[in-house]
Amino acid sequence: MRTAICERLGVEFPLFAFSHCRDVVAAVTNAGGFGVLGAIAYTPEQLDTELTWIDEQVGGRPYGVDVLVPGKVDASALDGGARLAESIPERHRDFVTHLLSKYGVSGPAPVARASADELGRRVTAAGATGLVEVALKHPIGLIASALGPPPPEMVAGARAAGVPVAALVGTVEHARRQVAAGADLIVAQGTEAGGHTGEISTMVLVPQVVDAVAPVPVLAAGGIASGRQMAAAMALGAQGVWCGSVWLTTEEAETAPAVKRKLLAASSLDTVRSRSRTGKPARQLRSAWTEEWDAGQESPGPLGMPLQMLVAETAMQRIGQAAERGEPGAVELANYFVGQVVGQLDRVRPAREVVYEMVSEFGDAVERLARLSR
Amino acid sequence: MRTAICERLGVEFPLFAFSHCRDVVAAVTNAGGFGVLGAIAYTPEQLDTELTWIDEQVGGRPYGVDVLVPGKVDASALDGGARLAESIPERHRDFVTHLLSKYGVSGPAPVARASADELGRRVTAAGATGLVEVALKHPIGLIASALGPPPPEMVAGARAAGVPVAALVGTVEHARRQVAAGADLIVAQGTEAGGHTGEISTMVLVPQVVDAVAPVPVLAAGGIASGRQMAAAMALGAQGVWCGSVWLTTEEAETAPAVKRKLLAASSLDTVRSRSRTGKPARQLRSAWTEEWDAGQESPGPLGMPLQMLVAETAMQRIGQAAERGEPGAVELANYFVGQVVGQLDRVRPAREVVYEMVSEFGDAVERLARLSR
Repeated sequence: MRTAICERLGVEFPLFAFSHCRDVVAAVTNAGGFGVLGAIAYTPEQLDTELTWIDEQVGGRPYGVDVLVPGKVDASALDGGARLAESIPERHRDFVTHLLSKYGVSGPAPVARASADELGRRVTAAGATGLVEVALKHPIGLIASALGPPPPEMVAGARAAGVPVAALVGTVEHARRQVAAGADLIVAQGTEAGGHTGEISTMVLVPQVVDAVAPVPVLAAGGIASGRQMAAAMALGAQGVWCGSVWLTTEEAETAPAVKRKLLAASSLDTVRSRSRTGKPARQLRSAWTEEWDAGQESPGPLGMPLQMLVAETAMQRIGQAAERGEPGAVELANYFVGQVVGQLDRVRPAREVVYEMVSEFGDAVERLARLSR
Repeated sequence: MRTAICERLGVEFPLFAFSHCRDVVAAVTNAGGFGVLGAIAYTPEQLDTELTWIDEQVGGRPYGVDVLVPGKVDASALDGGARLAESIPERHRDFVTHLLSKYGVSGPAPVARASADELGRRVTAAGATGLVEVALKHPIGLIASALGPPPPEMVAGARAAGVPVAALVGTVEHARRQVAAGADLIVAQGTEAGGHTGEISTMVLVPQVVDAVAPVPVLAAGGIASGRQMAAAMALGAQGVWCGSVWLTTEEAETAPAVKRKLLAASSLDTVRSRSRTGKPARQLRSAWTEEWDAGQESPGPLGMPLQMLVAETAMQRIGQAAERGEPGAVELANYFVGQVVGQLDRVRPAREVVYEMVSEFGDAVERLARLSR
């Protein structure tokens, strides 16, 4: 299966794998797909280490890096060098303390102040650019920008290095804006996707974006975890697919075991678009965490990005540790970003096997369709 | 393009057109598709008249009838022969009066009590069965049941007449239940669809339903208004597609002119799943009506089905008349059931042309896909 984007990026199958785990990225790239490492969790130094490891694994095969550039953040929180953590209102801190106590989560206090500034920097344009500088020292084949348009210095740096820039969008309007800002490749992501996502479904969004930005190539994201779904996305006009959720239950994924069990057991009705983890609507597993923030009587309501991210991630670290110790309240609270395809994920497989099965099922689906129109 | 369902139903293209307008049903059937008349708006006598007209138009080509069988209604409202309209709480009546006044809608009082019992009967199993009895006297090729499983007497009647029964579902669980109740054909409808709809997208839902009910054939609904989307749906494993929204802006549709203009101008972001028109979540154009009921400070919240349907439809009749007179507040309130594909609908075309374009684009999409996998 060859699309123009395969030629351009030197990839065998136009199957892009977004993952925070370097092992998944390397496995997919080595299987003929295109691994993309989500860099948000790393400092520039850590990212350098991860990419060096990937370089050693993939022997020159193509992979990419994804950074988060929010279009709008609560910038006041970053002003004047004030420590970000200090901007979190007392009642939000109190609500987290109340939640952890209500669900009997043991362990140390949740607010890890030391990482607050770091996290804040990482979700701003300046922070993303720092990560991109590190990434461009490696032989990467793609820089992807989630949320906002890529800042001019990121585009300039990537251009100078000959690395295409991809941008994730949830509306036609955003797609046009991203192309105007210099994106070489658009990832049109439907509402069914995991993580930050809009309201329009993949089936509706992809053809509209394809038509709006032509001849800029479009990848489809959201609802894609099988070869039939890959064929459907490409019937809509996409040149390839961008998948995230399907890798969370692979052997290589570092998904916490308690969360992995919840993912394997979940149906497609068990996700929710919630602002409770990052401050922006992001699809994730429905859990006591999302229910308490979104519908709990005592909830102060989520903060904006990046403050809610800070509130959530520091609490989630503690919840995750308690869940691994088997504390039932912590298991109830634990969740992760995942799309509606979670209902299809019912066993742990090597990432390589997922790639091969998707490519094989894609071929079957196309053959079946071709027979119909004869 | 021939699928097993084409053979079984004697149809040229597996393109099913749901419409409340007999002209659309006849035009699609005559163009080689399969028109399905939504019967909820009719009394048994009116339905008989409409079907007689269709019979005269289609010369034996296949068409079907769709009835609404809610799984759960507020049955207490129908008990003891009490007049349904009398069950509407005072504050809901007052809210409608307030809304019409706030938006300056002129005209007579909104509650048409005479039609209340009628409407109530039409959304219950007993009411649906009455419509089905009439439909089965005509040479129909399909009975479709929206919302709940078809009642046993409906299945028995259809079986005796040799007419297959189709059922709309939004989850795998509902699909299994419908097959157990005797459905011969499942319409798996994604959240992006207009009207009553669930939360799971077409891209995610269709393959799961196909696998769960095999070998029962599945049609895909939701997000389908073009040949590319039809090809995508069939790549997912559907044997055909079920479309509703795309007909609303055809020449043949009796869509009110003010609403038609709103549909043509709307983007895919302009729909919302709201309980404000029927009491159950139904996707429709976002308008002052949905905003006031769902987020207005004075809103008493929507009632259940069928009471909210009664509240809404009687008010909407008056709003529609005022909108046609050009009253701006009425135009703000006016809306209609439509899916996210509304963003693709930007001109008025004959229904026949929509069918031909979809079939032609389907062929192009399949050919493009086939070239990719060579």
